Parts: sequence; C-alpha cells; structure tokens
Amino acid sequence: MAPDVRRPVVDLTEAEARRALPLKWGTVPDDVIPAWVAEMDYAVDPVVLEAVQRALADGVTGYPLDHYPELGEAYAGWAGRHFGWAPDAAAVRAVVDVTGGVRLAIDVLSGPEGVVFPTPGYNAQHRLAGITGRAEHLLEVPASAERAEIDLDRLDRLLADGAQTLILNQPHNPWGRAFTRAELEGIRDVVLRHGARVVCDEIFAPLVLPGAEHVSYLAIDGTHDHAVAVVSASKAFNTAGLKCAQLVVPSAADRARLDEEPMSRNDSYSALGVVAALAAYDHGDPWLASLVERLDQQRSLLGSLLATHLPEVRMRPLEATYLAWLDASAYGHDDAAAVALERGRVRLSDGASYAPGSTGHVRLNIATSPDRLTEIVERLAKAWT
Amino acid sequence: MAPDVRRPVVDLTEAEARRALPLKWGTVPDDVIPAWVAEMDYAVDPVVLEAVQRALADGVTGYPLDHYPELGEAYAGWAGRHFGWAPDAAAVRAVVDVTGGVRLAIDVLSGPEGVVFPTPGYNAQHRLAGITGRAEHLLEVPASAERAEIDLDRLDRLLADGAQTLILNQPHNPWGRAFTRAELEGIRDVVLRHGARVVCDEIFAPLVLPGAEHVSYLAIDGTHDHAVAVVSASKAFNTAGLKCAQLVVPSAADRARLDEEPMSRNDSYSALGVVAALAAYDHGDPWLASLVERLDQQRSLLGSLLATHLPEVRMRPLEATYLAWLDASAYGHDDAAAVALERGRVRLSDGASYAPGSTGHVRLNIATSPDRLTEIVERLAKAWT
Ligand SMILES: Cc1ncc(COP(=O)(O)O)c(C=O)c1O
Ligand SMILES: Cc1ncc(COP(=O)(O)O)c(C=O)c1O
Repeated sequence: MAPDVRRPVVDLTEAEARRALPLKWGTVPDDVIPAWVAEMDYAVDPVVLEAVQRALADGVTGYPLDHYPELGEAYAGWAGRHFGWAPDAAAVRAVVDVTGGVRLAIDVLSGPEGVVFPTPGYNAQHRLAGITGRAEHLLEVPASAERAEIDLDRLDRLLADGAQTLILNQPHNPWGRAFTRAELEGIRDVVLRHGARVVCDEIFAPLVLPGAEHVSYLAIDGTHDHAVAVVSASKAFNTAGLKCAQLVVPSAADRARLDEEPMSRNDSYSALGVVAALAAYDHGDPWLASLVERLDQQRSLLGSLLATHLPEVRMRPLEATYLAWLDASAYGHDDAAAVALERGRVRLSDGASYAPGSTGHVRLNIATSPDRLTEIVERLAKAWT
Repeated sequence: MAPDVRRPVVDLTEAEARRALPLKWGTVPDDVIPAWVAEMDYAVDPVVLEAVQRALADGVTGYPLDHYPELGEAYAGWAGRHFGWAPDAAAVRAVVDVTGGVRLAIDVLSGPEGVVFPTPGYNAQHRLAGITGRAEHLLEVPASAERAEIDLDRLDRLLADGAQTLILNQPHNPWGRAFTRAELEGIRDVVLRHGARVVCDEIFAPLVLPGAEHVSYLAIDGTHDHAVAVVSASKAFNTAGLKCAQLVVPSAADRARLDEEPMSRNDSYSALGVVAALAAYDHGDPWLASLVERLDQQRSLLGSLLATHLPEVRMRPLEATYLAWLDASAYGHDDAAAVALERGRVRLSDGASYAPGSTGHVRLNIATSPDRLTEIVERLAKAWT
C-alpha cells in the first residue's frame, strides 16, 4: 500500500482533454463544451498511468493470464477499506469491461426468461437483454418521483410474470443515488421470493460522495446464491479504455459454471487493464480521496450555479457519481439537450436515451474544472431561458 | 507511409520475454522453454510501440470513437499493398479482437442453425458456435491427409443437413496453410449452393511465407453477399493484448444490420488498440518484411533440425504462420506434448486441443531465436526418442 500522501486532481486544459478523451472531446466542434459521456476532464492518477507505462515499456502487448489471483486480493483489500465489506479474493474474475461482465453473467448464469432493467438506466445497457436472447422489461421510475428508487411492487409483478434477472446499477447512473441497506434488503426479499437473479453493476462504487455510503448488494445477507457484482476501477480512475473490469461471484457453484465455459466467452480483457486495476486498487487511495473531494466541491458549485442561473431546474440530491440528472422541463423544451447544444454550445446527454419517452431531462457531467462547470451552467441558462 | 528503411527483428532475452509475455513465458517453470501459445519472442516493432506510448502519455485511457474511418483507410491501403486486393475503406469496423469479431458476425448475421468448424482448428474457437447459441459441426481433416484442405463433399453434406455458417480460418492455424484461389472458389461454390454464410478469420494473412500468397476470401467473386473477414495486425505485430481487430463487411446490407445493433454488442475495443493497428498498417511494412524473412529462416532451420534429430516427425509444408503442426505419432507417444513437457522441458500445444481425439500431434511455435529453436528440437528428440 502506498503511504497516504495525497496526490492532487489535475485539470486537463482544453488541448490536453482533446488529446486524452477522443470520444468526449473529439466529437464536438471547437466552440462546444462537452459534458456528456461519463469521463472526467482530469489527468489520470500518475501512479496508475506510470504502472501501465512501465508494463508497456516492458512490451506487455500480448495475452493476459487466464486468472489473476492478485487481482482478487487487490479488489478484496480495496473493498474492505472503502466499503467495509469484501468478497473472498477467490470470488473475483477479470472481464473485459463492466458491460461485458453484465452480459457474461446473464449469458451463463441466468435463466432464459426476461431481464428487468430499471429506467432511467445507463444507455449502453438498454437492449443488452436482447443481446443475451432475453426479453427486456423496463421498470420505470417516474420522472415525478420525489426519490428515485426501485418500486418493489412493480419488481414483484415483473418477476411474478416470469422475468428471471434484475440488472441493478448502484450507485446509480443517472439517478446519482447510492442505495441504502434497507432498500437493498427490500430488493433482495422480492428477488428471493421468485428465485430470480441479480447482476449488480457497481462501477460507481468508489464515487460515493460525502453524506452517503456504498453498500454492495453482495454485502446483504442471503444474496450470494443469486447475485454477482460487476466492479471496476475504471470509472473512478478514467481508465475504461484499458479493458479490465471484475466480476465478483460469491457462489462457488456459479464460479464453477463460469469457469467451465469455453475461453472465448471471456478472453478479451487486457493485461494492461489488469496492471491498471492492480495499481488503482493497491495504490490509488490517495488520489481517489482528492477526486472525491473535488467532486463534492463540484456538486456544491452546481447547486449554487443552478440556484442562481436556473432555479427551475429540478435536481435530486447527488449522492454518488459525477453525473447530475436534471429535470429542465419547467423551461418548456421537449429536447433540452438539443437546445443546449444548438443555442448553448454545451453537449449534454439527452435524457431520453436513459428513459425512453422522457422529455425535458438531461444528464450533466460535472467532472471538470470549476471554471468550466460555471461556464456550462451559464451557457445553459442562456440557452434554455 | 514510412520510407522503406528496414527495421530489424530483435530477439527477446529470456528475462525480457518473461516480462513481456506473461501467458507464454509466465506460466512455465524456469527450466521449461515455452513454444506453445501464438506469441512471438520478438520485441514489438518500435514504431508501433512508440505510437501506443505516445497515446498513453497523452492520457488516452478512455473510450474510443464509435467509428474510425481512418482505420478503414489504413487497412485498405495495407491490404492493397500486401494482398493485391482491398476492401472499400467503408467496409471496415473496429472490434475488440478476432474471436470477438467472429462471434459478433455469427450472432448478428448468421441464421440460427449450425456452424461448421474445420478441425484441427484454433482451440479458442472450438465451442464458439455454442456461445452464439448454435450447434457446432466439426469438419475433420484426417491426420492422414496428404494435404490439409477442406473436404468439399463433407462441407456440402453439412450444409445440406442445415448448417448455415462456415468458420473459415485462412491462412490456417494449425495447418500452416495458405489456401489457394482455386480452393477458395471451391468453397464459395458449395456455400453459394446452400445460401450459407462464411466468417473468414484471416488473422494470419500478414504471415504468409515466401512461396505462398494470401488470397482473402473476400477477393473471390461472388462472396460479398455472404461473407465477412476478420482481420488484425495483432498476430503479425504481437499486439493481441491491445484489443482492436477489424471486421471487414463488404455488403452494405450486412453493415446496416451490424450498425443497428445496440452498442453493447461491440463497444469493447480499445483506443490504444486502434492506435496500434493504425501504426502497424500505415508504418509497419519495413518491420514486417524483416519478420517474414526471419520466420522463413526459422522454417528452414526447423526442417533441417527435424531431418537431423527427429526424422520420423511428419511435417506438412509450412506455407504461413509461425506454427508448425507436427505428427510425432511415429515415436509412439499418445500425448506427445505431455512427454515433451515432462521429459524435454518444452511446452508445446497439445494437438488434441485443436483436433479432438487426435493423438501424437503437437503444435510447435517457431517464432523465437535460432538458438532457442535448436535447443527446443534437441530437447524434443531426447524426450520422444
Ligand atoms: C452504470 C454504468 N455501467 C457501466 C458503464 C461502462 O462500463 P464499461 O465501459 O466498463 O462497460 C458505465 C459508463 O458510464 C455506466 O455508467
Ligand atoms: C486462427 C486464430 N484466430 C484468432 C486468434 C486470436 O485472436 P484474438 O486474440 O484477436 O481473438 C488466434 C490466436 O492465436 C488464432 O490462431
């Protein structure tokens, strides 16, 4: 473990961001500020970057090992320190990325019937059920709800009607919520009643902000026989392109099923991604602490900027992630993201891509500099009002 | 295009190889020489490595673009120069790796019925059909065949019985063969007769050795409506871990089907892998020329070593790849690879993993130094005789 000497968050200049983040920055015209895809405008933690650079200098461009016991150890250590609960190191498997891990878990471990997907929900996992050959059942959180939470009665009905898997994303994108233990217990009870499975995407677990805490679904009693978690250092450390997330599989029987699969089910993770994950889990704490502090500041800043410039935007408390789910419908634009882009020169994520049919919602990425966030909200105010 | 100043092949020392190639070298005891998995004991082309290092120094650790037109241009340029035939640049899509591309093509483009898989065949693609929810039909090349080729009558029967897809790997691992135009036309005729599809894994195309040539299946008339090729710079440049291969989809209708799929079907390729592929295709020729020269020398060396030390090993002409498919059954060992490991301290690939039920066959990787190859064959001679 690295000594706890804080490493600061370093903001990328615009020129640096354009080089570093081809998707986020490279797809917008020069006069547009991108605040859409979930990537941060910060330099990668130097300890993580240097670990990958060393591996690359060694020529590590080829195949990874079939199994990395040290990755399980590193993740278990990290989870214990950060979340107060850790799986057995032996429960951890490398996968190419989080969405690949969700797919793998459903493909191999779930029954053939439907998959419940709460919406709003991470856009790239919409229609993932179909890829696994299963029906998708949306479990909608209505835009009017005071607090975004899974409606247990609806979940119960969907499972009673035959759905067999719940994709649970928590901390949740784009709600920005960290589920409480009580909420998770409620979900567990419903799932157990129907013998269903849960695939819990916990990619944002390291980014729970002060005031909330991350409780892994696997930390809830009675979940190990029906659930896996998909975890990763990639969202907190901006390394999604290095291609290694982890599947946490607490049940030995489930692990046996996964391990019996042909290797082509799961041989796309990268040795460089493993290096990045190990560096982040073993040595990333002092950087993550700075990051969470920064995101907390950005959250406060957003709150005051909205109060000043866009008082009618409705934002639920941002408990986790750096993605604010904003209801801008009071300003009367059906497609608030399109108006933001055209008139405001800010690229947001369109709410409808998370919640089909929703109007007036957008997702705003606050993981940038205070100046840029200020400029973003000022531009939105001009565009929308 | 880089000027044609040759860059030499640089052999890795044993210590370097252990650092660079964790799977090939890291999984064998110190006294064992690994000659199994398809990775080369050579330093990565510095031009490719430096391109990736520059991107990493820029902080490119995040998401790639949805589409890279320049990758299509680069591949088309490469294919034109090396194979005398090039697809439209617009036909090229990035995929995470070759096996992922084969899976994607079958999942999205093939009918639901069986997949024909010629054996011996690349071990990690055995049972890939099952992952796509389809039956697998092995099309065996008998060990006794004088020349390893697809038996068109059997192919015809399997397709008549309902199989709808052929996974064709050419140049072929582990046969070491580059198919001729006439052979490919024969396959096309049978496939057309049944309205079947072909997914052609051409990962070894850059590694056709002097005396043979690579003809893409897509260079054969009448294939564009039923075939895709999966290509990559990763095998020739030892960069399989950087995670970007390419799917060449000549039919606009097929491309439309692929492009309509949810992004989670194909969002795991890496921006660093794209950088590596671009560098290899645009600037890798002077290194590849040295590599092919070296592999040609290794092939000759293997021939004379076998003649001297293991005259009863049967080896068919190695036209392509750096993988020799050896019939050692004359020496009477059912599991020649196990004997090589135990007595000879050489790790080969077991033939039975390519051709279920085959005995006495092994696959030997010659992409190493002349000294190491000499030592390997001398050890095999001691072990087997
Ligand atoms: C909830 C959620 N899961 C997964 C991902 C993506 O993870 P990966 O790129 O590892 O598939 C994201 C990306 O923003 C996300 O928001
Ligand atoms: C024929 C063949 N296809 C594909 C691969 C692997 O490619 P990838 O790692 O890109 O899936 C190999 C590896 O040796 C191979 O021999």
